[in-house]
Amino acid sequence: MEDTLLMIPGPTTVPKRVLDAMAQPIVNHRGPVYGEILKETTAMMSEVFQTDNDSYLLTGSGTSAMETAIANIVEKGDKVINVVSGKFGERLQQLTEVFGGESIPVEVPWGQAVDPAEIKRVMEENDDAKALTMIHNESSTAVVNPIKEVGAIMKDYDTLFVVDTVSSLAGDTVKVDDYGLDICLSGSQKCIAAPPGMAAITLNDDAWKVIDSFEQPTYYLSLKAMRKSGSKNPPQTPYTPNVSLTYAMNEALSMVLEEGLDARIKRHHAGARATRAAAEALGLELFAREGDRSNTLTAIKMPENITDAELRGTMRDKYQIEIAGGQDHLKGNVFRIGHMGITGLQELSMTFTCLEMTLKELGFEFEAGAGVSALQNEYLKN
Amino acid sequence: MEDTLLMIPGPTTVPKRVLDAMAQPIVNHRGPVYGEILKETTAMMSEVFQTDNDSYLLTGSGTSAMETAIANIVEKGDKVINVVSGKFGERLQQLTEVFGGESIPVEVPWGQAVDPAEIKRVMEENDDAKALTMIHNESSTAVVNPIKEVGAIMKDYDTLFVVDTVSSLAGDTVKVDDYGLDICLSGSQKCIAAPPGMAAITLNDDAWKVIDSFEQPTYYLSLKAMRKSGSKNPPQTPYTPNVSLTYAMNEALSMVLEEGLDARIKRHHAGARATRAAAEALGLELFAREGDRSNTLTAIKMPENITDAELRGTMRDKYQIEIAGGQDHLKGNVFRIGHMGITGLQELSMTFTCLEMTLKELGFEFEAGAGVSALQNEYLKN
Repeated sequence: MEDTLLMIPGPTTVPKRVLDAMAQPIVNHRGPVYGEILKETTAMMSEVFQTDNDSYLLTGSGTSAMETAIANIVEKGDKVINVVSGKFGERLQQLTEVFGGESIPVEVPWGQAVDPAEIKRVMEENDDAKALTMIHNESSTAVVNPIKEVGAIMKDYDTLFVVDTVSSLAGDTVKVDDYGLDICLSGSQKCIAAPPGMAAITLNDDAWKVIDSFEQPTYYLSLKAMRKSGSKNPPQTPYTPNVSLTYAMNEALSMVLEEGLDARIKRHHAGARATRAAAEALGLELFAREGDRSNTLTAIKMPENITDAELRGTMRDKYQIEIAGGQDHLKGNVFRIGHMGITGLQELSMTFTCLEMTLKELGFEFEAGAGVSALQNEYLKN
Repeated sequence: MEDTLLMIPGPTTVPKRVLDAMAQPIVNHRGPVYGEILKETTAMMSEVFQTDNDSYLLTGSGTSAMETAIANIVEKGDKVINVVSGKFGERLQQLTEVFGGESIPVEVPWGQAVDPAEIKRVMEENDDAKALTMIHNESSTAVVNPIKEVGAIMKDYDTLFVVDTVSSLAGDTVKVDDYGLDICLSGSQKCIAAPPGMAAITLNDDAWKVIDSFEQPTYYLSLKAMRKSGSKNPPQTPYTPNVSLTYAMNEALSMVLEEGLDARIKRHHAGARATRAAAEALGLELFAREGDRSNTLTAIKMPENITDAELRGTMRDKYQIEIAGGQDHLKGNVFRIGHMGITGLQELSMTFTCLEMTLKELGFEFEAGAGVSALQNEYLKN
């Protein structure tokens, strides 16, 4: 194998087709050629978001889209309900506070999804909240939150429902219009399988109404500026975009639609089931609660007496496979395997073959071949 | 010619070496391989900035670095002197106001550089100003501002000197330490000749002192967060960086240093002299005042009875050469030729050959071949 296999929860391995598209010569970002590419790419973004809303591309990482979502709607003193069930939920809370919002946190133990009944209760007490923020797929804990069920509750309130789908879009079901997501954001480098450095956001008229009601304390991430430039003919971005990454996103989104959004999501679910089955067959324990587990990555508890450096170091140095560690208080306590983007049976087979060898070398006891065997069985069911 | 030749003031034509570097497979942005690339790239940035300060890379366009510079130092009510001599000077003024600063504008007619004596006068009246902002190379007017002379004045004041070198760094002389620039920012897609989408910033202890004195109302562009992640071993970025563009910047900066910073700047100056000579030999009038003219792009007044659509449209559609129009009130009144990045005699010869043909077709009278001839003569002098 020439290159290290990226099995982290993003950036994911980028197909050569996308890398080659990215390496095309630069064009004038204010000209008709770029305008056409931008138009096509944002239209594909809306298709993947499953929305009739316009979508916007940001030259920035997922966090820039998180900041865009908050900075454009939160004014000093606004009540904002933040579902906090991991590191990225915390980030939306921090952003709320940076922009002067009064955060009402809904704390959920790491490893669990939020209970829609809890949201119902909080909304009844706080129906004056300006927004409720939620991470769809909390990649720090490998948990998926019930955005469909929460969306159904939020339809009864004026509170904006802001959902981060950075690590789920194009890998798990996100129906922006059907679910009633007022603002939805995502990133380039996860299930879409483009390189990192571009983010996307889509929003409906309810969100625009809030945005149009005040002057935002932001400039680079101003949605009003994006709307103004985006409505030009040909469409533009307010500031110089990453032209190369627009090519890459265009190609990556084309691949998503060629595969078919539903087929791609099904493939992600299959990878998730196989990964969980393989890990459990090895006697490893999954971190997230059953029923709440992510379909795009899996968090596995670190076996006793094995350190993060040993496990991930061996995987990287000896087998050229990069898996992720835990974040914050989970550092050293879990490791995470991404099954995102173009990853499927082949990449998971390499990963579990080498994970078994690594565990064996580190003295962990398990039935030889049990992981790969469970992986095969799971895939054979499909 | 296969591709359209980009003669706009950025993005500029990107060398194949850089495009190929960008198309390399993605690596883990939290791992040692990326850490080493980041370390090397930021060290080269500091070398090009001619500073002993650390430099930081931002996943964002030049405007994100402008916002970074302002958002991290300006608090509500702070006096900030904004030199406004074109569109980008205005942008720093707008950013000052977005972050609650009280702007003291130093208005300079478009097409002229600021007079250092005027800065001296304004500083004497406003020595309590927190910062003075200036665009080094105002690409909307093709004017270069005297940062060395203003830097010498600013050494007598506590006011931070914030300089935007987006369209000059690596094409004109920028000595951050010698000139006393407290904060200096730049972009990837101009004289460095990498694709757009990455920006860089460097700052000294005086700037850090201001930054450490308050809580910034920004998150994605927080310099404190960049410093914290950058000081890890291996260094990191606070949020997922554009890995591909880091490769591209690494390669593009290597090319800058291989050519030699001084040689590259000399080449840019030669291109500027040749462009001006060629334009004037055709009987065209330069927009910027003599003595104030940029060394990385040239603004030329649109000849009477010729429209922007005719001139730039013919250049693009018939000759595959993309030049820039005017911005804001200069729209239709000037056109701009970038001589940035890897552009030299060859690209300028194509440009002026085709510009002569375009002008002839549009009925503009001039001595046949005068432009190309002046271009040759100017280059033969070197």
